[in-house]
Amino acid sequence: MDAIERARKVGETMFAVDTASRLTMGMELLVCEPGRAVLRMPIKAMHLNGHQICHGGFIFTLADTTFAFACNSHNKNAVAAGCSIEFLKPVHQDDVLTCEGLEQTLSGRHGIYDMRVQNQRGEVVAMFRGKSAQIAGTVFPE
Amino acid sequence: MDAIERARKVGETMFAVDTASRLTMGMELLVCEPGRAVLRMPIKAMHLNGHQICHGGFIFTLADTTFAFACNSHNKNAVAAGCSIEFLKPVHQDDVLTCEGLEQTLSGRHGIYDMRVQNQRGEVVAMFRGKSAQIAGTVFPE
Amino acid sequence: MDAIERARKVGETMFAVDTASRLTMGMELLVCEPGRAVLRMPIKAMHLNGHQICHGGFIFTLADTTFAFACNSHNKNAVAAGCSIEFLKPVHQDDVLTCEGLEQTLSGRHGIYDMRVQNQRGEVVAMFRGKSAQIAGTVFPE
Amino acid sequence: MDAIERARKVGETMFAVDTASRLTMGMELLVCEPGRAVLRMPIKAMHLNGHQICHGGFIFTLADTTFAFACNSHNKNAVAAGCSIEFLKPVHQDDVLTCEGLEQTLSGRHGIYDMRVQNQRGEVVAMFRGKSAQIAGTVFPE
Repeated sequence: MDAIERARKVGETMFAVDTASRLTMGMELLVCEPGRAVLRMPIKAMHLNGHQICHGGFIFTLADTTFAFACNSHNKNAVAAGCSIEFLKPVHQDDVLTCEGLEQTLSGRHGIYDMRVQNQRGEVVAMFRGKSAQIAGTVFPE
Repeated sequence: MDAIERARKVGETMFAVDTASRLTMGMELLVCEPGRAVLRMPIKAMHLNGHQICHGGFIFTLADTTFAFACNSHNKNAVAAGCSIEFLKPVHQDDVLTCEGLEQTLSGRHGIYDMRVQNQRGEVVAMFRGKSAQIAGTVFPE
Repeated sequence: MDAIERARKVGETMFAVDTASRLTMGMELLVCEPGRAVLRMPIKAMHLNGHQICHGGFIFTLADTTFAFACNSHNKNAVAAGCSIEFLKPVHQDDVLTCEGLEQTLSGRHGIYDMRVQNQRGEVVAMFRGKSAQIAGTVFPE
Repeated sequence: MDAIERARKVGETMFAVDTASRLTMGMELLVCEPGRAVLRMPIKAMHLNGHQICHGGFIFTLADTTFAFACNSHNKNAVAAGCSIEFLKPVHQDDVLTCEGLEQTLSGRHGIYDMRVQNQRGEVVAMFRGKSAQIAGTVFPE
């Protein structure tokens, strides 16, 4: 199995059982490649906080899920060891968010991944940086 | 109106219209005092990710909501200007999370708030730090 | 050796060989107790950046050193696994900064420590949060 | 004056008066372009902590200085509104660090900048993300 096929299978395997991201939040998995993932999330009334804008926690959740796919894409189990987020623009109902995650460095067991969340006009609404640590095990047996 | 009564009314006003926190995530507002808030969130199947543990994004969301109540509790509109989170322990279905947020400093328009998320056994599962900036306006007219 | 004596000896041992903190930056070690450390740094012309205020990197350095003493105080080698800082007020020449670091949680190998940097008027100028990971070895043989 | 010439003049103006970066830490300014800066810092005995590796605070200081040049390069005064750093590899005496800072987004008064610190073998030793806010004034009159 080559790296591209492996990453695609990691994505399908993880997404099938991710209730929080798929069912509760309504995300779609668009791409899972080696060191890269793209997910999409349409913003609905259920995502709005008291200011009638999307709760920042749900933007974080989209980016955190994208991070998980990108850092597990080599089929070596990896977990988040820290993350930070910057919120840049408010997100409104009926916006459609797309998050792209990219591996910046992977050295030994530790990696850095950058997630960029954009709305349907291509405006960056948030940037998330995650640090990963590989642990024992694989996403699917190989 | 004194500071304690004001904070309580801020809490009720904000929580009533916060669809994301109250209805989607199932949080309860326990306390909203000057510079302090406590919220609770029981973890259900809908909160679980592919590892069958609570999605980190939802723990962030609980802390971010608590932060919003604590930093708006003086009835001056405040927004998040940055935040970071550390995840310390996995959270499982049927755990009940309680998050307490406390003002650490408030100087001019800028404040620092620390949120501590604990499970029903009193174990700290996450720590979140938020920086706030006051903007124009109030939560309720006064 | 009890915990208090052990922490004091950790502090003396580490500080004696810390060229960067002691000689280059001019810090003094005031306290090293179990899970707590206090250091002081007078601000001189050498610390000033182009705005004629203390370079934020040196405030970070003071807090990072304090973090190292607090998280090694149990005489188990510990390293930083991530940190964040918020700068709250500018620092000027002839200010004297004091940084107190306190253990917030220590569970297994991982701890969270909060450092608070104050000037000689007791104003908080920066807050730093560090996550530590214990590794093999001790600061001094025991 | 075009954008490239303006950025170069910003760099020269700021660096000339930055005692902390130039004299105390021994940095060299290599590039100051619109939204981009590169600085270099050779690691000497004065930079070493008690583990005989470069103090993390000085790596932070190099990245923070690079951030300042990149976010002021448009000749509009800008200040740091938050930053985070990940340390990836230890740095030793006689290593030569190079830090490149790049503007990721600049929208209205707020920008995000990523700094990447590498050693003389091209290994990434730290990654720093800074959020800037433009304030009144310019670096040099124009």
